[in-house]
Amino acid sequence: MAQPIIIYAVCFDISDDRIRRNVGKILLGYGDRVQESVFEIAVKTPYQLHQLIGQLRPLLEESDKLRFYRLCANCREQSHVIGEGRIADWPNAIIIC
Amino acid sequence: MAQPIIIYAVCFDISDDRIRRNVGKILLGYGDRVQESVFEIAVKTPYQLHQLIGQLRPLLEESDKLRFYRLCANCREQSHVIGEGRIADWPNAIIIC
Repeated sequence: MAQPIIIYAVCFDISDDRIRRNVGKILLGYGDRVQESVFEIAVKTPYQLHQLIGQLRPLLEESDKLRFYRLCANCREQSHVIGEGRIADWPNAIIIC
Repeated sequence: MAQPIIIYAVCFDISDDRIRRNVGKILLGYGDRVQESVFEIAVKTPYQLHQLIGQLRPLLEESDKLRFYRLCANCREQSHVIGEGRIADWPNAIIIC
């Protein structure tokens, strides 16, 4: 059975080093760091993203900013990279045995 | 007549301050800065994006990284912001008289 996954690019401006490190650790559990403040992550359901946002929000200060850009397969195909790496080339679904 | 526009989130890791400022100035001609190293831009055609990439590439050093994430209307709707601002709430097309 194939479980569709939902891919996001997560970008952040977080001033405090400790908070930024903690947010990075949490996001690493969902995907890869592709730039200093950009991760590409995969979640299984919109509710899982909702849970992740709920986990991150209490850590943040008023001035901190995060953006979760949804990337459908079509948008990933039309995205571009200059420099190292490729756009999240994960499959659209993961096999669950 | 309505001209469809193509929206991208542009994220970058650029170490040299002068290069980073110059890239920022160029991107401001296509849209808005939404985070320190993230812009949301609009182009009219894929070729226009190709021209923009061609304009930026010669400015960059080997280690610099840029990602251009295409954001269709559906992806923009399913994107999220924590903190200030909203995801590029431009229309999908601009009216050309």
